[in-house]
Amino acid sequence: MREAYVIGVGMTPFGKFPDKSILALGRESCWEAIKDANIPPTAIEAAYCGHARTGRLLGRECGVGQSILWELGISGIPISSVGNFCASGSTAFRDAWLAVASGLYDLVLAIGVEQLTARATKGKPLTSDGVELLTAMGFSPPTFFAQMAMRHMYDFGTTREQLAMVAVKNRKNACYNPRAQYRKEVTIEEVLHAPVIVEPLTLLSCCPTGDGGAAAILASKKIAKKYSSKPITVAASVLRSGEYKQGREITSLGATVKGAQEAYERAGIGPQDIDVAEVHDCFTPAEIVHYEDLGFCVKGEGGRFIAEGHSQIGGKVAVNTSGGLLSKGHPLGATGIAQIAEIVWQLRQQAGERQVAGARIGLTHCAGGFQESLELAEVSSVTINILKI
Amino acid sequence: MREAYVIGVGMTPFGKFPDKSILALGRESCWEAIKDANIPPTAIEAAYCGHARTGRLLGRECGVGQSILWELGISGIPISSVGNFCASGSTAFRDAWLAVASGLYDLVLAIGVEQLTARATKGKPLTSDGVELLTAMGFSPPTFFAQMAMRHMYDFGTTREQLAMVAVKNRKNACYNPRAQYRKEVTIEEVLHAPVIVEPLTLLSCCPTGDGGAAAILASKKIAKKYSSKPITVAASVLRSGEYKQGREITSLGATVKGAQEAYERAGIGPQDIDVAEVHDCFTPAEIVHYEDLGFCVKGEGGRFIAEGHSQIGGKVAVNTSGGLLSKGHPLGATGIAQIAEIVWQLRQQAGERQVAGARIGLTHCAGGFQESLELAEVSSVTINILKI
Repeated sequence: MREAYVIGVGMTPFGKFPDKSILALGRESCWEAIKDANIPPTAIEAAYCGHARTGRLLGRECGVGQSILWELGISGIPISSVGNFCASGSTAFRDAWLAVASGLYDLVLAIGVEQLTARATKGKPLTSDGVELLTAMGFSPPTFFAQMAMRHMYDFGTTREQLAMVAVKNRKNACYNPRAQYRKEVTIEEVLHAPVIVEPLTLLSCCPTGDGGAAAILASKKIAKKYSSKPITVAASVLRSGEYKQGREITSLGATVKGAQEAYERAGIGPQDIDVAEVHDCFTPAEIVHYEDLGFCVKGEGGRFIAEGHSQIGGKVAVNTSGGLLSKGHPLGATGIAQIAEIVWQLRQQAGERQVAGARIGLTHCAGGFQESLELAEVSSVTINILKI
Repeated sequence: MREAYVIGVGMTPFGKFPDKSILALGRESCWEAIKDANIPPTAIEAAYCGHARTGRLLGRECGVGQSILWELGISGIPISSVGNFCASGSTAFRDAWLAVASGLYDLVLAIGVEQLTARATKGKPLTSDGVELLTAMGFSPPTFFAQMAMRHMYDFGTTREQLAMVAVKNRKNACYNPRAQYRKEVTIEEVLHAPVIVEPLTLLSCCPTGDGGAAAILASKKIAKKYSSKPITVAASVLRSGEYKQGREITSLGATVKGAQEAYERAGIGPQDIDVAEVHDCFTPAEIVHYEDLGFCVKGEGGRFIAEGHSQIGGKVAVNTSGGLLSKGHPLGATGIAQIAEIVWQLRQQAGERQVAGARIGLTHCAGGFQESLELAEVSSVTINILKI
């Protein structure tokens, strides 16, 4: 295994684009990544394309990557679809990392795309794959994270205000990100008094529906040096699925805890070394739990961690400088690679008004899907990447 | 990159099992592979699960592998979904190969599953993803292969009888395969006079709809030696997508030609060294074209190649000893790994009455999906594996 480097990233604005084709979203992000990497498109040797709902919503379950690349003049190379719910894009990124790290290829493209608005309202509601029994009993992603919030409040004294601070912080960051879906600041009061989705979550505690594409180009050392003056090292790329066991707590995702341990070990660093992180804030309590699971603070201290400003730009670790899923948006398959793009921009000091001064080490964390379990749903997959300059 | 070995394979019988869950099909095949490899299930370090239509037909677009393995007590490891149309399973196999060959893992599972009967008749007809424009103009997989047949007959004098011989040979082989979907011999006359699907293809020239699962376990040399007395070496594992270009001929798939060249080079052998091959005989003319594209005979000689018996058991290269897609069946995502299983059994001399005497080198060839092109549809992806004892 050898080092692999990110030498180009791209992403579309995230938002509601029901009239745009998913292929256009993919092409736009790939083309930006190709220009950013300064490579000829035909130098790309392989590609992995992550998407989570294109089959069910758009009738495109396979061949999405082939169709995206076909019109950019890229064909004949190995291309495949990769799926892992909301972690589909980050799983495609990890596959691309392995394809370079293995020595098989020198230049590999990872794509993530999703279009949720085009058809989502026309059919019947989409249940989560693989949790049919729990769904029949009332389970949905918001109910899961509402339970997580309630239990965290009960066990650790976390407050509704602290939960709301996650939405407020990420919205503030999004105001400085021209690609974010929502860019109007909100207050704690507005979050608390927005329409209730599931107690204690309100509309502003939940990530929105949206469309978008993102792409990243990975290269071996030799090729990275040839094309890039600022290659970003992939210090660790980890994927884990949830663990089946009884008696687990809902205030922690085991796959995040173990995945983070593996990632820190591979990168030879600890959580205190992370300057900037994009984490899976699908709902406000999730971000608080991720602080703890990723080791940014000790168990139960997540609410205080945000209240004391440790996760804002200028704090101990700036979390979701892009606006996160909550405000940048969450087109499922695109999210994991958009997280990579944000960290790359931060490490290159190209993040404009949301720049974390002197950021040198960044982390991305993406969680996808659910599996049925005896007592609780368990997360289906978690990816964690550590990037460094 | 290091060598990787297949140490266990499994597959369900292929057939119509509308009342069976796709998870049961997956579990059954994984369990057989685990027993065949003689490993503890929890020793598996990562898994890739190939499926092509489970999202559109069953509402399960992600997490299929996680759900299959969960009930076998396997959780916490990296698992993802892989899609590439009919080559989904073989793409998952290649991902598993790379995961071992890279040095990242020592023991990796590849799964392929599909259930086409459960819902296929309830909804509206499924078009091929990515060829919407051509579909509106009358394109479908049978029309593509009918055009291929017509042109091959026109250019090279291939006869309807020679096309029919593919169905007859593969059905005869299937009679000796207890897992095949159709096991009653057919004659050339019966193939020629079956109901016409698209001239010159009749019902017996086309692969059936079916359900099934298949699994393969790959290991590093150290682990292979620990558990297996007969590990099978993966000498090459190649994936290519179709090439976009004008003026190509319909009597050849460029991705097969170039993929085969790459596979033979990596394996250090030539087509004359292949003892047994499983090729993508979705329609009878496809197998004839594959003989030529894989280098088993020269261009235009495919019809004569089968007529002279070179592709039957005992001939130059025994093709589709399992019965092939035409008679063993074609549950899309399962096919590529079922091909691996057949070759592994042949190389271990475990293929019973359909055994190719002394087989030492085998090839699998799987083609998936279509891309729209200016003049013709082009195949979306082709996988080629070379296995040896």
